[in-house]
Amino acid sequence: MAQLHAMVSCYVSARTRIKMTMNSENRVQNHVELARGSCTLGLYAMNGGEGPNSYVQNSSYQRGVVDVAKPIIEEEIDSKFDIENLYPTTLNSFRVADFGSSTGHNSFPAMQIITNAIEKKTRRGGMMASQIPDFHVFFNDQIMNDFNTLFNSLPPERQYYTAGVPGSFHGRLFPKASLHFAYCSCALNWLSDVPKALSDETSLAWNKARVHYTGARKQVFHAYSNQYAKDIGSFLEARAEELISGGLMALLVPAVPSFIGSEATFTTPTEFDLLGSCLVDMAKKGKLSEAKVDSFNFPLYFTIPQEFEEIIERNRSFTIERTEILNNPGKLTLTSCSARSMYLRAVFEGLLMNHFGSEIMDELFERYTKKLEASPIFADPSNEKSIIIFVLLKRKFE
Amino acid sequence: MAQLHAMVSCYVSARTRIKMTMNSENRVQNHVELARGSCTLGLYAMNGGEGPNSYVQNSSYQRGVVDVAKPIIEEEIDSKFDIENLYPTTLNSFRVADFGSSTGHNSFPAMQIITNAIEKKTRRGGMMASQIPDFHVFFNDQIMNDFNTLFNSLPPERQYYTAGVPGSFHGRLFPKASLHFAYCSCALNWLSDVPKALSDETSLAWNKARVHYTGARKQVFHAYSNQYAKDIGSFLEARAEELISGGLMALLVPAVPSFIGSEATFTTPTEFDLLGSCLVDMAKKGKLSEAKVDSFNFPLYFTIPQEFEEIIERNRSFTIERTEILNNPGKLTLTSCSARSMYLRAVFEGLLMNHFGSEIMDELFERYTKKLEASPIFADPSNEKSIIIFVLLKRKFE
Repeated sequence: MAQLHAMVSCYVSARTRIKMTMNSENRVQNHVELARGSCTLGLYAMNGGEGPNSYVQNSSYQRGVVDVAKPIIEEEIDSKFDIENLYPTTLNSFRVADFGSSTGHNSFPAMQIITNAIEKKTRRGGMMASQIPDFHVFFNDQIMNDFNTLFNSLPPERQYYTAGVPGSFHGRLFPKASLHFAYCSCALNWLSDVPKALSDETSLAWNKARVHYTGARKQVFHAYSNQYAKDIGSFLEARAEELISGGLMALLVPAVPSFIGSEATFTTPTEFDLLGSCLVDMAKKGKLSEAKVDSFNFPLYFTIPQEFEEIIERNRSFTIERTEILNNPGKLTLTSCSARSMYLRAVFEGLLMNHFGSEIMDELFERYTKKLEASPIFADPSNEKSIIIFVLLKRKFE
Repeated sequence: MAQLHAMVSCYVSARTRIKMTMNSENRVQNHVELARGSCTLGLYAMNGGEGPNSYVQNSSYQRGVVDVAKPIIEEEIDSKFDIENLYPTTLNSFRVADFGSSTGHNSFPAMQIITNAIEKKTRRGGMMASQIPDFHVFFNDQIMNDFNTLFNSLPPERQYYTAGVPGSFHGRLFPKASLHFAYCSCALNWLSDVPKALSDETSLAWNKARVHYTGARKQVFHAYSNQYAKDIGSFLEARAEELISGGLMALLVPAVPSFIGSEATFTTPTEFDLLGSCLVDMAKKGKLSEAKVDSFNFPLYFTIPQEFEEIIERNRSFTIERTEILNNPGKLTLTSCSARSMYLRAVFEGLLMNHFGSEIMDELFERYTKKLEASPIFADPSNEKSIIIFVLLKRKFE
């Protein structure tokens, strides 16, 4: 099993589906064997630190998602967080975890919203301030995530105790029945790994000279969607073990409104294709090998609401308490081509460097910026049709 | 309030008391205000990574401490870890924390010993494997600690879930009554800060041209011992809040057998004085300012068993279940002068760099190695008379 965490923005024009994502893929086998079997280490992460190419400086899109979700999360906690039924597990603390928190920049406001809402609910239930359990907030991301930046960025005014949890969220990370609230925003579009068939020359899903499923054969798309269903299944299975019966989980999932048409869907160009075409150009100029490009694919998938709900229902451990399709104002913040190129770099550089080496990065993103400038349809964020699926789940009582 | 974490070795010859310690001091005010007031951020940490100057490569002394303590910890858990009385707090997990874990190198074997012993005790109590709660192990150290190395070093064969907890152990780090077992090895010799009077020219405790209390006026020593009592008091107060009634705490505290004589104790040269004299030499040569040396003091203190027990008794939240004086075989592993110089560097470089800058480090430790080689009494580890105080405490029932 493996894991990817991510924040993502999806730019979908009328004719294109363009996705940009951060954080990465795991390939190295880790021998950690806990209840659910082996996990794979994450080899990449979003760009750390706070420099111009860092994720911190390039994540306004993700921040927009948090803002839009705020009133819904508050409302749902108020009506669905059932403190009496959670007792005695709440004896010592309310335990909240963010899966795929990256360096925390967009996680902190979310954790603030959740802990405040639980506290408000508790007070309204008649609990005195001194009786309210402490909050324990866990920030999870890949082992390769920049946890030192995360810890240094913890908001000074926070009213909770903190811990960092390294590892794959496609596997178990917490003791059984230990969490009251799980949260995962802009991360479940990352696959645990690129489907194997994509780099198998004998397979119909061999994805030569491409880096994603757009513009590719339908077998490529199906390899991706199968992997996605398996990965979300693993995520839900792990959280079902970790959440206390009656515990809540809020998922904010980067998606697209629908799979337009049939195979035609996958033949329209996207920003991934733009980046892929830059790689092909560079291979033609002998700056990297063709085989390197053939064997690279983005481990990303963008679901549609119906598909995502079906995966949840197959799990059987959760009830779906609410679903919403969110429109994200944050997507309008990246207006210039250079800003969007920087954003893409903050998100993908680790992944690309691991495959192609660091030497080609500057040239690759220069080429990419130029292609973006030459293609106005890609550069206009008002063409963006991506969505965020909000789902609130409740762990069933056993 | 502030905090230091550390691993330490103390080299005490017949005529000298020599202490070497890792990790460091905090001076920057942090605005985190939780239950117990403000904490100070740690500005230094032991050397991270795994290079030749890293703590990982220079901590055989601390590993010796773990080995010696193993049978005692096992015996105490077997006889004092009272699972029935801890219910229902053990419903979801056994929670164990290591305070001052550094990059984990010596923490992992300790956590293995503790979790194995608790599991054994549980099984002997008739609990089936499937009924045994999961273990949740928390690794705490300064915010500046190299948590990425810690997370990358987690033992693949571990049978527990993990989290990293950044922050000062002189303050609160966990929710109230949330821990079953606390552990702290070779860290409580670090003060939360250098006593203020030491750099006050108008005070009798002004410690001009010295870097520690050895060889200094008795007012300097008293400023140190008062700070120590206050810091250990803060540590115990925080842990008393965090431990569940009936929970255990094992402390392994670097110390000396006794304060020999009176003021004469503080006039014998130590390795700190050697390092201090290197700094004075460099100031004379104009490589750093005299004022810089005058304002630098090591935030370290080595208690004696009687003093330490008195501090614990003043707290009133714990019963002392066992005390032992441990002799550490690890102290014999550092035989060459260059190895001891490397060790000192792994431990103190962060602290020294923060005060003096990084430029002088190579020369400082070259000078130090030469002085060590010229003073055979310092270089012979068989002259080492330091001790480790082992104390097992139980949180009283309220």
